Amino acid sequence: MSTRNVYLSNMPLDEAKKLWRGTLEQKGFFSKNSIEVIGVDDSLYRITAEPVFAKRSSPSYNAAAMDGIAVHFSDLTGASEASPIRLRDDKFIPVNTGNALPEGCNAVVMIEDVHYLSDTEVELHMAATPWQHVRTIGEDIVATELILPEGHRVRAIDQGAMLATGVVEIKVQRLPKAHVIPTGSELIQPDQQPTAGQIIEFNSRILAGYLNEWGALATRGLPVQDDPEKLKKSLLEAAAENDIVILNAGASAGTRDYSAKVLAEVGEVIVHGVAIKPGKPVILAMIGDTPAIGLPGYPVSALLTMKVFIQEMITTFLGKGLPKVKTIEATLSRPLHSPMGVDQFVRITLGKVGKNLMATPSGKGAGAVMSLVRADGLLTIGAGNEGIGAGEKVQIELLRSEREIDATLVCIGSHDNILDLLANHLHKQRPIVRISSAHVGSMGGIMAIRRGEAHIAGSHLLDEETGEYNVSFIKRFLKDIPLQLINLCYREQGLIVAKGNPKHITGFKDLVENKLTFINRQNGAGTRLLTDKILSDEGIDSTAIAGYDHEEYTHMNVAASVANGSVDAGLGIRAAANALDLDFVPVAEERYDLIVPAQFLNDPKIVTVIDLIKNNDEFKNAILALGGYNLLDCGKVMYDQQ
Amino acid sequence: MSTRNVYLSNMPLDEAKKLWRGTLEQKGFFSKNSIEVIGVDDSLYRITAEPVFAKRSSPSYNAAAMDGIAVHFSDLTGASEASPIRLRDDKFIPVNTGNALPEGCNAVVMIEDVHYLSDTEVELHMAATPWQHVRTIGEDIVATELILPEGHRVRAIDQGAMLATGVVEIKVQRLPKAHVIPTGSELIQPDQQPTAGQIIEFNSRILAGYLNEWGALATRGLPVQDDPEKLKKSLLEAAAENDIVILNAGASAGTRDYSAKVLAEVGEVIVHGVAIKPGKPVILAMIGDTPAIGLPGYPVSALLTMKVFIQEMITTFLGKGLPKVKTIEATLSRPLHSPMGVDQFVRITLGKVGKNLMATPSGKGAGAVMSLVRADGLLTIGAGNEGIGAGEKVQIELLRSEREIDATLVCIGSHDNILDLLANHLHKQRPIVRISSAHVGSMGGIMAIRRGEAHIAGSHLLDEETGEYNVSFIKRFLKDIPLQLINLCYREQGLIVAKGNPKHITGFKDLVENKLTFINRQNGAGTRLLTDKILSDEGIDSTAIAGYDHEEYTHMNVAASVANGSVDAGLGIRAAANALDLDFVPVAEERYDLIVPAQFLNDPKIVTVIDLIKNNDEFKNAILALGGYNLLDCGKVMYDQQ
Repeated sequence: MSTRNVYLSNMPLDEAKKLWRGTLEQKGFFSKNSIEVIGVDDSLYRITAEPVFAKRSSPSYNAAAMDGIAVHFSDLTGASEASPIRLRDDKFIPVNTGNALPEGCNAVVMIEDVHYLSDTEVELHMAATPWQHVRTIGEDIVATELILPEGHRVRAIDQGAMLATGVVEIKVQRLPKAHVIPTGSELIQPDQQPTAGQIIEFNSRILAGYLNEWGALATRGLPVQDDPEKLKKSLLEAAAENDIVILNAGASAGTRDYSAKVLAEVGEVIVHGVAIKPGKPVILAMIGDTPAIGLPGYPVSALLTMKVFIQEMITTFLGKGLPKVKTIEATLSRPLHSPMGVDQFVRITLGKVGKNLMATPSGKGAGAVMSLVRADGLLTIGAGNEGIGAGEKVQIELLRSEREIDATLVCIGSHDNILDLLANHLHKQRPIVRISSAHVGSMGGIMAIRRGEAHIAGSHLLDEETGEYNVSFIKRFLKDIPLQLINLCYREQGLIVAKGNPKHITGFKDLVENKLTFINRQNGAGTRLLTDKILSDEGIDSTAIAGYDHEEYTHMNVAASVANGSVDAGLGIRAAANALDLDFVPVAEERYDLIVPAQFLNDPKIVTVIDLIKNNDEFKNAILALGGYNLLDCGKVMYDQQ
Repeated sequence: MSTRNVYLSNMPLDEAKKLWRGTLEQKGFFSKNSIEVIGVDDSLYRITAEPVFAKRSSPSYNAAAMDGIAVHFSDLTGASEASPIRLRDDKFIPVNTGNALPEGCNAVVMIEDVHYLSDTEVELHMAATPWQHVRTIGEDIVATELILPEGHRVRAIDQGAMLATGVVEIKVQRLPKAHVIPTGSELIQPDQQPTAGQIIEFNSRILAGYLNEWGALATRGLPVQDDPEKLKKSLLEAAAENDIVILNAGASAGTRDYSAKVLAEVGEVIVHGVAIKPGKPVILAMIGDTPAIGLPGYPVSALLTMKVFIQEMITTFLGKGLPKVKTIEATLSRPLHSPMGVDQFVRITLGKVGKNLMATPSGKGAGAVMSLVRADGLLTIGAGNEGIGAGEKVQIELLRSEREIDATLVCIGSHDNILDLLANHLHKQRPIVRISSAHVGSMGGIMAIRRGEAHIAGSHLLDEETGEYNVSFIKRFLKDIPLQLINLCYREQGLIVAKGNPKHITGFKDLVENKLTFINRQNGAGTRLLTDKILSDEGIDSTAIAGYDHEEYTHMNVAASVANGSVDAGLGIRAAANALDLDFVPVAEERYDLIVPAQFLNDPKIVTVIDLIKNNDEFKNAILALGGYNLLDCGKVMYDQQ
């Protein structure tokens, strides 16, 4: 244990990039064997490595451009309606579009203008001009002219142009071969059932997917066990056969430490440790003249680090220069702090609410692959920057199209499982409406509406004095904002307990009496208020409940804590208990409403949502199937504040 | 001949689309067998046909989020620098990132904060909080939660998320199978040498390329000869095995007429003839419940018609709704007329000159595949519109990225073969500079500069009185525009004649005396002025030259006319004669300059061009290799108008 190499360098990103680029150039990475000859039929989306010139003219013969007859224009001199000219078939030849113009002819008369007197004689009422309705040789392109420049990405139309001019093979940039080696004895394949401590090997699939998207030809190896000798063998084999080798540590036993050691033994470690977040422990090494990169184990770190160091290697190899980044300007909704000297990459959720495009940092854990699935963009905070204030304009690198962002309904507030269903049903609409939901509790939703950052907010805040839901909170915090409060459902809240309720829990009192453990919801959550109201009604001191201070953010996370045995009970909705096949002890029925500012009521996205909850029986049946819901007032305006 | 079906209907596009859509819906095209189950590993870029829910939580066990030791937080209560706490190895267990948290532990202390006293004892200087540095079960996503909605295009990160949560198979939209049948006895394969009347079959490659790009699984058949029985057999076979059958007539003998007849025999013709330009003769038919579309033979017509009728079929089949069209607003540089009642699609060249994005109609012939290669966008003129005036704002559908358009140098004016070389050398630069050149003659270039539509113009206008090139024309037509006149080259002009000069041509006099045929250049071309000056100097009457009225627009087209024997001679540059291996009778040396408005002299694109012509020896050597050039003043400012 004590011999473990805990420290690694913390090289500034700029310096690491420069050093790495210099090494790659010195080793000839960008130039070696980078061209191959392929058939035009196989060249779609490839990058030309030389200009392509026409081998033949197009058309390569004088061709009829219309169906009709071929003539010599001088035979029709003076023809008119008043004095038509007749030609016998030694003076005309029927042609169809594309036919070669017969010897001695220099014009085509369209079939519509030809009056057949017999099969061998025609009458014409108009003079012709030389070369009318004829596509002359080289009209489109003349042999030797440029079809495509070097460095051009071949499209299907380009393939057509090359074939039309007799070009059947071209030189293109060879695709760099990249090989991903996953390491870690704990890795299993997707079709195996993991036991505790095992994880499904999915990182290499993510990495290979993006490598291919960036233009490489990526392959994946089988996971290598935590054994330096096996790893050495894999690395040497991969380096011999590929242009780029990627080692992905897996969330494994000290892998990242011995990865560097092994890389140093089979090659040369150029950089180990860069001042970026996430991604600090990255290893940039060379095995002979093959670059080998050791990526951190967490999927988010691995992918972002690969973007930083490998994407540009591939595009430059392909002669495409810097990768193209699509950015958009947005307003940061929360302050972001960043350590000086570190380049930080922050996952961002974007929401266009009214005229504001708001950027909200999302996803903290580097292990959280869902946070990247849900992210709309990335924000880079440079090393010289200590942070960015709320309200500041930031440039966000888009991970989705702008069109998708525009079509996104921003829903911030209390969590309910219906929101997942809603997201899916909205996605079936044409045009598609996406939903981006942040689960920050009912009060968090009200505050987001106040700041103009959400289209809708789910809320179930019980006013202990009036016994009414949401309205008094709206009057207090949103009094200047015209809005409607629209009911989504009534839902059962209760104690979520283990399957079969082995501890025989009937209510909060049992938790205290039998010293059972509880998991709470965060402050500002409607469910937290409900917990507190019940405790107060039943005269229970919250400090008497073990786990009252331990908070989770969603019903599903509360249910998950019960399901994995961490706690005995938590307050949540029946749908969450049902989803994880747990038992449920009802405690209360509560109202869950959506707050919608009046300015969005005519937004097509909101119109779609309201139509869905009011009128879509398939959607309503899906809700009822979750269990614990009452849709008596679903879609009804409970309060209208103008 | 006389029985040929010349007429077809001229149905308005809207009506045709509605009728076709109705037929497809009625035949169940969009719903039949449209879902398939595939492995997540194979699902990249596919569209989900059902929402995807997590099968397992992620993480699926409580996991160490850091390398360090696992402890129970209560064992560290009160620990501080002043009063450290020591633990023996019955109270801590070493863990690495990703390890399952051992039974009885609920926190992890980072390795950096652990002071090993021995292998069995550690000292800690800080208290711990419960669950610190632990990724709890379901922290990322809880089993049963939504990972991906229906209708989502799977990305590599989504594959990772699915695998991480135990999802190994998903339902996706099946890709529609499209089969392209090229028809025409005149079609040959790319590796064969065409004789007059034969054409290389390239349309099916273009069509299949775009079908795949739009999301279909496209295959191509071998060309079917012009034989109705063979065509029937191919159509029936293709309809039995595919979702969409596409018949592409080839520029062939009346194919489009008997295509409709054959389609009517094996199925039902829904529409034949739509009021669109190009693409009027399109046939929309059903063979059983398989749509079969007969496309016009010309590549441009075929592709545009396919875009109009088939792209949306595919995207709707895939549940993606209307195809996404990227448009940009531009100013039309020339008036465009369009027949009432016809939807017209116009190929457009875009050029950003100063602040103006100018849209210039390009490419007339539907057979001109290069016109689509060169096009930057498409303009649709609706059926209710008789035309659009110059200077009007129009929406252009982009065929290239905006980034490429921005990087495009617009060069309008006289044609010289050096421009092809320039285009290629510019493409090698990083960042890439594209060149879009329109060959409209020297005067056309001067007018484009005057209207602010070009960055540079190539010009070789000889003032007969002063004997000087270009300057007097600039003073007359561009007097208010600050600019520089920069020399590109001196070049030999002469009579381009057949290989070996079989007619023994020594000058224009021989053309008259021996009644040989000539091909001229258009009015406004510098070469036309040179022709006229020589004729005047030599006292030759232009009407005495056969072919003086027959005009071509570029040196290469003049050379091509000589090469294919249409004419005996034409005036042009030596490089054009050399390119097509023709003989050349020198007549004059002339100066060819570039006109560059001063406002663009600091534009990075122009800076790159000027640097290239001044300093790049590889470029200069390539020019000299073309033959007939003198680079004495290359890059020199010949006239500076401030």
